[in-house]
Amino acid sequence: MDITALLTSAGINIAICVVLLSLYSVLRKQPSNGCVYFTQRLVSEPVKYSDPFCLERLVPSASWIMRVWQATDEDILAVGGVDAVVFMRIVVFSIRVFIIAAMICIFLVLPVNYYGQDMQHKQINAESLEVFTIGNVKEGSKWLWTHCLALYIISCSACVLLYFEYKSITKMRLAHITGSPPSPSHFTVLVRGIPWSPDHSYSDSVEKFFSTYYPASYVSHQMVYQAGTIDKLMKDAEKMYRMLKTIEPQCGKSSMPCCLCGGTTHSFKVLNNEAESVKSKTSVDGLQPTQREKERPAAFVFFRTRYAAVIAAQVLQSSNPMLWVTQLAPEPHDVYWSNLSIPYKQVWLRKIATLLGAIVFMLVFLVPVTFVQGLTQLDQLSHTFPFLKGILKQKYMNHLVTGYLPSVILILFLYAVPPTMMLFSAMEGNVSRSERKRSACIKILYFTIWNVFFVNVLSGSVISQLSVFSSVRDIPIQLAKAVPAQILHVYVSKYESGGQFWPIVHNTTIFSLVLTQIIALGVFGIKRSPIASGFTIPLIFFTVLFNEYCRQRFSPVFKRSPAQVLIEMDRQDERWGTIEEIYNQLRSAYCQYPSISPDLSTAGNTSHHEDKESSQDPESLTPGNQLVKLNE
Amino acid sequence: MDITALLTSAGINIAICVVLLSLYSVLRKQPSNGCVYFTQRLVSEPVKYSDPFCLERLVPSASWIMRVWQATDEDILAVGGVDAVVFMRIVVFSIRVFIIAAMICIFLVLPVNYYGQDMQHKQINAESLEVFTIGNVKEGSKWLWTHCLALYIISCSACVLLYFEYKSITKMRLAHITGSPPSPSHFTVLVRGIPWSPDHSYSDSVEKFFSTYYPASYVSHQMVYQAGTIDKLMKDAEKMYRMLKTIEPQCGKSSMPCCLCGGTTHSFKVLNNEAESVKSKTSVDGLQPTQREKERPAAFVFFRTRYAAVIAAQVLQSSNPMLWVTQLAPEPHDVYWSNLSIPYKQVWLRKIATLLGAIVFMLVFLVPVTFVQGLTQLDQLSHTFPFLKGILKQKYMNHLVTGYLPSVILILFLYAVPPTMMLFSAMEGNVSRSERKRSACIKILYFTIWNVFFVNVLSGSVISQLSVFSSVRDIPIQLAKAVPAQILHVYVSKYESGGQFWPIVHNTTIFSLVLTQIIALGVFGIKRSPIASGFTIPLIFFTVLFNEYCRQRFSPVFKRSPAQVLIEMDRQDERWGTIEEIYNQLRSAYCQYPSISPDLSTAGNTSHHEDKESSQDPESLTPGNQLVKLNE
Repeated sequence: MDITALLTSAGINIAICVVLLSLYSVLRKQPSNGCVYFTQRLVSEPVKYSDPFCLERLVPSASWIMRVWQATDEDILAVGGVDAVVFMRIVVFSIRVFIIAAMICIFLVLPVNYYGQDMQHKQINAESLEVFTIGNVKEGSKWLWTHCLALYIISCSACVLLYFEYKSITKMRLAHITGSPPSPSHFTVLVRGIPWSPDHSYSDSVEKFFSTYYPASYVSHQMVYQAGTIDKLMKDAEKMYRMLKTIEPQCGKSSMPCCLCGGTTHSFKVLNNEAESVKSKTSVDGLQPTQREKERPAAFVFFRTRYAAVIAAQVLQSSNPMLWVTQLAPEPHDVYWSNLSIPYKQVWLRKIATLLGAIVFMLVFLVPVTFVQGLTQLDQLSHTFPFLKGILKQKYMNHLVTGYLPSVILILFLYAVPPTMMLFSAMEGNVSRSERKRSACIKILYFTIWNVFFVNVLSGSVISQLSVFSSVRDIPIQLAKAVPAQILHVYVSKYESGGQFWPIVHNTTIFSLVLTQIIALGVFGIKRSPIASGFTIPLIFFTVLFNEYCRQRFSPVFKRSPAQVLIEMDRQDERWGTIEEIYNQLRSAYCQYPSISPDLSTAGNTSHHEDKESSQDPESLTPGNQLVKLNE
Repeated sequence: MDITALLTSAGINIAICVVLLSLYSVLRKQPSNGCVYFTQRLVSEPVKYSDPFCLERLVPSASWIMRVWQATDEDILAVGGVDAVVFMRIVVFSIRVFIIAAMICIFLVLPVNYYGQDMQHKQINAESLEVFTIGNVKEGSKWLWTHCLALYIISCSACVLLYFEYKSITKMRLAHITGSPPSPSHFTVLVRGIPWSPDHSYSDSVEKFFSTYYPASYVSHQMVYQAGTIDKLMKDAEKMYRMLKTIEPQCGKSSMPCCLCGGTTHSFKVLNNEAESVKSKTSVDGLQPTQREKERPAAFVFFRTRYAAVIAAQVLQSSNPMLWVTQLAPEPHDVYWSNLSIPYKQVWLRKIATLLGAIVFMLVFLVPVTFVQGLTQLDQLSHTFPFLKGILKQKYMNHLVTGYLPSVILILFLYAVPPTMMLFSAMEGNVSRSERKRSACIKILYFTIWNVFFVNVLSGSVISQLSVFSSVRDIPIQLAKAVPAQILHVYVSKYESGGQFWPIVHNTTIFSLVLTQIIALGVFGIKRSPIASGFTIPLIFFTVLFNEYCRQRFSPVFKRSPAQVLIEMDRQDERWGTIEEIYNQLRSAYCQYPSISPDLSTAGNTSHHEDKESSQDPESLTPGNQLVKLNE
């Protein structure tokens, strides 16, 4: 591949980018797309498009980019929550690091590489790409210190930026914990592995255990039931209701009578009643034998204070660590009900099984990589398919095939990865959507590191053309790629993690930095530059030391809530008398069979996004994509 | 090395063993050695030797071995505590695994190896050792399934034994927690990283923090003071007192006046008073400015219940994770006072520094290994030192040098490892003796694995003659090597970990098994036996799965105490009214400057063992060596 092929590739990418941005700009102006692009706003205040048609609607504009760019952290925080801000910070951080790296590389490293050998240079656009790499520098060259210096500048600036980001995000997270209004999840603990007893129902066991050991703080509990027919019927009904909802406006528009509209919604009423009857049975008659059978060994237990809930979630409850397993409950909307009925004893086995599955998937993925690698061997290709010879002789087609096609094919294959990992994560037994997505996210990260980096470096195959170094440093950007403007308007967020995914970004960045430094160390060794190698070793050491410091100083806050803060909040609640209100909320917050209420239209919209998530869109997989601001 | 050399080596080892056992048997009968061999009994009931001299004292006997062998787990539990029993279980477990492995290898694997090739066998004692290894089996031989079978039998029996040991030790640990009488350490939390404030002393800050956030359960606290001159003087005094104590009886025996005896012990009285005055000042006058300066940002905080202490120790206290760092306090005798005054902020740096130090030490250790390797090249040796030629020509000397000398030299070098690691662990900032020893123990384990195994397999150097396979499986035995019967009589234990080092043994055994299996997989691959390789892979998988199960089912009990158990114990204390007694004990339990009291003679003896520990004896380094039964 020469430089023209690279430029062709870059040109195509930029062109596609401009086309997509214009398309977005036009599409979002169409009223019929309002429910897609302005979901958030629609939910809070229904908007009417008064003007049915005008020319402006068809002309792409750039003003929205400016508006998005001008949005401050405070605006985003107010609309999208901490997760959204952290997401934006990741993008900003990545852009900053890339700009620094690009400047250093273009003005310092590239010239040194280009003039690294005493040779006659061709015209610059006919040069092979290798002239611009460190491979062009003579062995033992004194100029290798520039590469070492570049490494120092990039590493140090990345670490400094990381430090300030981590510090500010930690502060934001603490402010979020302190400032967020009481949410049911703060007071609730999810208990799994409730021991089976022939004499009591699971519900009685929970009642007995917590009223014995937490008499002062235990309020009440709610059992998890087996997902059965009612559950399935309700889901079907919801789906059908949604379908009708989307058909209705179209019927209305066409002002023609439609056989699907106008019917009574008996079915929903019946279902609704059935669900209600199940609930009333549970609460009024006590547990019928069938009800008892439907109980699963899992429950949500409600506590009087946040601190008590955190304590109950952190302490080892029983002398058998597989029984009475506690954790802080996910937010009500975040609960992944179907996984709650999995016996806790199975969970570790499922984790191992999915891990194995993911590893097998990674290995199987080598097949398309090898296939693409075969494709790019131009000579071989035209040998196998003689009719291609003529096409490939054209210079432009050659550039296209060597410079662009391999990466496109590979990216298409990569699109299969996120849904697969999402499936694995669902099978793993995660009890919340956010956890499931977090787990899938980490799996994709490992996959990317393994596949884009190690496989390619080791086998020297095609994706190296995607430029290995930037690929690895790319990972935070990959995470951040899907940043919604695609946040202010679009998503009705389902949960708020309080920026819990920042440590993943931090660790990945450090990993990428250290990997880059180790590779540089190897290259300096090959190039016989003891000084450059010697200076790289302390850099690696200090990078690791910096990471360790951050792990000590910031990371515990992302894992556990500080007691001091929780106790203060509990006391404030007591003083302000808001605590009674919370107890009333608690009893209805975690409802496995929600009644089909007027807010189903909202549910319909959010489910729409949920569906989209599990589809083939990798960009919807980052945890910040579906964000919550429950306090809105 | 041929088989005769191996037998020579084994013969020498057995002979040395018999000599050492006889020597032990004779020495322990000498009354003057009573304080060494019967410390434990001497502490509880002073024994008088009525018969000053008889022939029996000089004749080695074997009866004590029988007595030791007959001691049941209950006897050992009563005298030495859980740690001692666990220690014995490790030995028994190792012996069992070795017997199984030896039987399988001698009756199944060895014959297959020996007749693995169609060859004329020499007389058996002239055979090279390689005839007995798997190297002698033909490539693609059908008999390789016997090796695979042997691997299955050894792995499965090791796993089954491990499971039952883990189960019974977990039960024992729980019984120990439930059955042990109230100890100050159960109610005490060690707080480090107390924030500095210009207005308050550290003591005031602790008081304020805990009475604000734990008003119901906070009892009182005790500050840690800077180890200063008084501390040093007291230590010197103690040392001198001990020296005098050991000189005194000798003087008595020789019935001659001695210039060291008969003097008044003014110095001790003075020191004692000074220490007392420091204490009274602290408690009566409040904190003088100089006192305040001597306060370190660490304190022992006492709580009303065990459960409250465990909660306070587990919860993240402050939003800055480097401040108010809590952990359950070590037992009073176990506290390593000088490390308590290290600022908590330094601890992570110290940990990294000692880790680096240990790695450098491991690398430097390659020098003696290479040196010994050079020595064993017989031809080269006699070339360098021509005068050795004659000696080395003798057959016996040749066996000695190739079979025995290298391992002896290496073991001598290995003796330097434990004290070095102990030094590293002390520098690391561990706050208790047990933690320090545990950390040193783990470092030695890594060192052994790295050095005895990896270095030798990779470089194929001399220690491979110590037989690599058994070396790795040896590790639990290395841990258990110093098992005191040598426990019933000798050691006055300083702490009781409740068998907390069993998980280390478990993990190491699993690691060794998996490593063995992976090596076997490689060997089967080289020997082109796809069936044997194919059957080894599920074995590796199931071994890892078994480990994961144990990690889920048993290991949490070794890290945290179950809330259910603690709460029950607290309630029992309340019912029985023993709680007041404990509060009274608490105030005096953690004393940084213990007064030199009549029990100094005991302290002298135990310190004697403590000194021995940090000396060049690797056998004293395993955590179970200094065991406690505080409830005696």
